[in-house]
Amino acid sequence: MGLFTKDIETMNDLFIHQLQDIYYAEKRIVGALPKMIAKATSSDLRQGFEQHLDETKEHVQRLEKVFQMHGAEAKAVTCPAIDGIIDEAEDVAGDVADKAVLDAALIAAAQAVEHYEISRYGSLIAWAKQLGRDDCAQVLQQTLEEEKTTDKKLTSLAESHVNRAAA
Amino acid sequence: MGLFTKDIETMNDLFIHQLQDIYYAEKRIVGALPKMIAKATSSDLRQGFEQHLDETKEHVQRLEKVFQMHGAEAKAVTCPAIDGIIDEAEDVAGDVADKAVLDAALIAAAQAVEHYEISRYGSLIAWAKQLGRDDCAQVLQQTLEEEKTTDKKLTSLAESHVNRAAA
Repeated sequence: MGLFTKDIETMNDLFIHQLQDIYYAEKRIVGALPKMIAKATSSDLRQGFEQHLDETKEHVQRLEKVFQMHGAEAKAVTCPAIDGIIDEAEDVAGDVADKAVLDAALIAAAQAVEHYEISRYGSLIAWAKQLGRDDCAQVLQQTLEEEKTTDKKLTSLAESHVNRAAA
Repeated sequence: MGLFTKDIETMNDLFIHQLQDIYYAEKRIVGALPKMIAKATSSDLRQGFEQHLDETKEHVQRLEKVFQMHGAEAKAVTCPAIDGIIDEAEDVAGDVADKAVLDAALIAAAQAVEHYEISRYGSLIAWAKQLGRDDCAQVLQQTLEEEKTTDKKLTSLAESHVNRAAA
């Protein structure tokens, strides 16, 4: 959500506003991931982030498609939530010298981002269906599935990381 | 994560820092939920928020227990992520006149909060295990289960809300 919700009166307004919010978020993630790739020390994690960067660029395009399908302008509104999550992610990656600790912090930061997106796409899909826009819901569902898969991969990486550290 | 991660060198530092972050977040949620309860129009949603307020107060106490078990001071560090999420939640609930739209926005805001917590508790549990603190992991797991249950209840509320609106 942005900070100008006075304009929200109908479910359609809410849907478009949330689209604008996640559009801003996805674009910020496209900007943040290269920095996370540069900082990741495990090659598995780096590859995971690289793959997710490609996917995130596609998520931006999918959102543009949904805006178009719904006859709304593709516009981003500032989203303080993703700003906070990404600021934390960039902050934590800044000064940690130990590689295992740095990777653990990066994985946690990325999972906070994924969970934010999972919650937002979940709401968007419910509202698209309510508005009779099953076509939009279907496009958004593709992205939601990819976000969930990324979150699961990050959990596996965190666990294998734990096992390596404990070995 | 707070903004002073220069002090993070070890997995133990990261664990304690994240505990301080979620401790801040839980306390902010205790402050935010009464406003959401006051704004919710459906009685199901209001009751759900009331129950979750009681749980959240318990989550704060559980975190204090984990700090104590781990021999660390119970201290909160500012968490820009939850600040952003809650600012958005309060903002969106401010000016929506239509009851159905307001409830839909409140449910979405609450789910963003839940997903933030789910990601943070997930990381904390993995790190507690890595540090050999299965006792701490077990306490944190109780809270994680409650956050997941709350998220599922909110999804059901969103869906029943959609069905009512469509009827």
